[in-house]
Amino acid sequence: MNATWSRPKEASKIRTIDVDETSDLAVGATLFGAGGGGDPYIGQLMARDAIQRHGAVPLISIDELPKRGLVLPVAMMGAPTVLVEKIPSGEELGRVIETMQAYFEQPVVAVMPAEIGGINATIPFVAAATLGLPVLDADGMGRAFPEIPMCSMSLSGVLANPMVVTDEKGNVVTLRTIDDDWSERLSRTATVAMGGASIIALYAMQTQQVPNAVIPASVSRAIDAGRRLRQARQATAVDVETLLAPFGAKLLFRGRVTDVLRRTVAGFARGQATLAGLDADRGDVLTLDFQNEHLIARRNDRVCATVPDLITLLDAEAHLPITTEGIAYGQRVDVLGLPCDPFWRTPQALARVGPAYFGYSLPYQPLQTTP
Amino acid sequence: MNATWSRPKEASKIRTIDVDETSDLAVGATLFGAGGGGDPYIGQLMARDAIQRHGAVPLISIDELPKRGLVLPVAMMGAPTVLVEKIPSGEELGRVIETMQAYFEQPVVAVMPAEIGGINATIPFVAAATLGLPVLDADGMGRAFPEIPMCSMSLSGVLANPMVVTDEKGNVVTLRTIDDDWSERLSRTATVAMGGASIIALYAMQTQQVPNAVIPASVSRAIDAGRRLRQARQATAVDVETLLAPFGAKLLFRGRVTDVLRRTVAGFARGQATLAGLDADRGDVLTLDFQNEHLIARRNDRVCATVPDLITLLDAEAHLPITTEGIAYGQRVDVLGLPCDPFWRTPQALARVGPAYFGYSLPYQPLQTTP
Repeated sequence: MNATWSRPKEASKIRTIDVDETSDLAVGATLFGAGGGGDPYIGQLMARDAIQRHGAVPLISIDELPKRGLVLPVAMMGAPTVLVEKIPSGEELGRVIETMQAYFEQPVVAVMPAEIGGINATIPFVAAATLGLPVLDADGMGRAFPEIPMCSMSLSGVLANPMVVTDEKGNVVTLRTIDDDWSERLSRTATVAMGGASIIALYAMQTQQVPNAVIPASVSRAIDAGRRLRQARQATAVDVETLLAPFGAKLLFRGRVTDVLRRTVAGFARGQATLAGLDADRGDVLTLDFQNEHLIARRNDRVCATVPDLITLLDAEAHLPITTEGIAYGQRVDVLGLPCDPFWRTPQALARVGPAYFGYSLPYQPLQTTP
Repeated sequence: MNATWSRPKEASKIRTIDVDETSDLAVGATLFGAGGGGDPYIGQLMARDAIQRHGAVPLISIDELPKRGLVLPVAMMGAPTVLVEKIPSGEELGRVIETMQAYFEQPVVAVMPAEIGGINATIPFVAAATLGLPVLDADGMGRAFPEIPMCSMSLSGVLANPMVVTDEKGNVVTLRTIDDDWSERLSRTATVAMGGASIIALYAMQTQQVPNAVIPASVSRAIDAGRRLRQARQATAVDVETLLAPFGAKLLFRGRVTDVLRRTVAGFARGQATLAGLDADRGDVLTLDFQNEHLIARRNDRVCATVPDLITLLDAEAHLPITTEGIAYGQRVDVLGLPCDPFWRTPQALARVGPAYFGYSLPYQPLQTTP
């Protein structure tokens, strides 16, 4: 079965994403990655290459989806550091999409990012360019999170199941599980056995399930954020709060990295970074706890932002986002807080992605209300 | 799709296996398990229960197979010790068979053991009784081996792939791999993630592929061996070589266990047992190296039997086979050598199952020629 998507009659209305915009997307998705998602450079190179060979990719909104067919999130799973050693080709993405189509006996009409963080924001564009599909302007997190069940689809009653995991050698694992925690566990162990990184497809949805299950417009938001940061690099004086005002950005701290501690625990990069204040923050100390993504920011031991709100670092001069694995001694950084999508602020969602899930006995404090 | 098997017109010719014969099978399969395959008691209980509820199971020979349809080996994977804690029901077996039927869009017309060792000799009878299928009188090893690719099917060009792995909770993993080593690796990690034991289906064959890919008549051989051992328990003086002459049995040693060393390495039970000679063997020492199954027997440091020939222990009084995990200090045992199926004696097969594969720099010495 071939993936099919018919361009609507008023084709001129459809936005297409070219090579330059994928660069903006990669940067914006690192900002929304909240420290996670990996260095977007590889994802950007992959998407650029695919678009240069196959042409620009349509980016469609939810109401531009056809009435029937599957919308399929595709992503990379595992350690981005491993991915650099074994760069996935369009082949893996084609394989997971083919497997899903055969499973459902239905065509995939659009792919989408599972998370709008780092590499996983650009991977769907590689699939889309290679297979002639559009990308849906949406994702399942509005940011990056470390685990599969931390997805709007999961909380909206769409199961990750069936899930397909493949590697660059050609092995394909199809999972039918009793819940998303088992999808997480079995796909994680398969990914480790495959060498530490895999390409996955999951949370397949019928088009009519999409509106209630996804975080809308997050791809275009990330492109917009990336463009703003690119333009800021040409400006002389930049107020990042004003620059990123459409995303509710708040400058939490300006400082210099004085310490970084990292350890790999159960496949995650856990750690803590300490920053000494500069300018208006001189004399103060900010500490950041992270597990792939930033979890908690404390100014002088007082919590000033918590997951699921986004805590993200920008290089103070280049205005480029820094991932948790990129934090290094001596960097001058702006620490930003961005409110998470309102989806995550219900008690049900917070039980899945709030501070308590990550082992902190802290209540979630919505970013706006912190002093 | 339902599994279908039509009883041939001359139905009276078809052998059926009842509750008593499954006991003989369980004992015989422990003999052919060469120390591996786990305590057959659980498998025997499961098969007894299924046959009592659903009736005797037809045991058919290769030439009694229908012209079309799938023959499917089903088995337990993982540690038999774990299986005791989570006894599989017919449900898991039904699930792997259903999944295979859906994958191939063809009915399964017979199940068969993947190995004729321990629990895995009786598991197909549970599936067969529950689903109303016959068991094919054949297996893929003619004994037990520790790894999936150590199968006559694998060496005959039938891939383990597609392989289905399920647990008692209802999770199902379907593998499509590039080779049987990857099927082994990915199913092993899935089994560990599922809690250490799983039910698997693999090496699905079209009926016409069967004759060249299996070890024939091994189920009835095991039943025969089990019956002989049962009858011996009522006799006064038993010569085990004569009793088991149809299987080429050779008494390698009679002795008392003086030492057992076991360690769990990479999911396998590795170890060594030492025996002090009794009767004609008084003054001599026998050492046995094992990895789930017995690999090498040495009398006074001189090799007297090696894998793939079967080295197996019988309790000297009860004439019941002892698995490697059942070896205990002080036991009086007869150590038997049984020649493996001729299938394993080609250079190609020995590369997969000979002493060198298990890390020994020893040539394989066919059992008959050892002094």
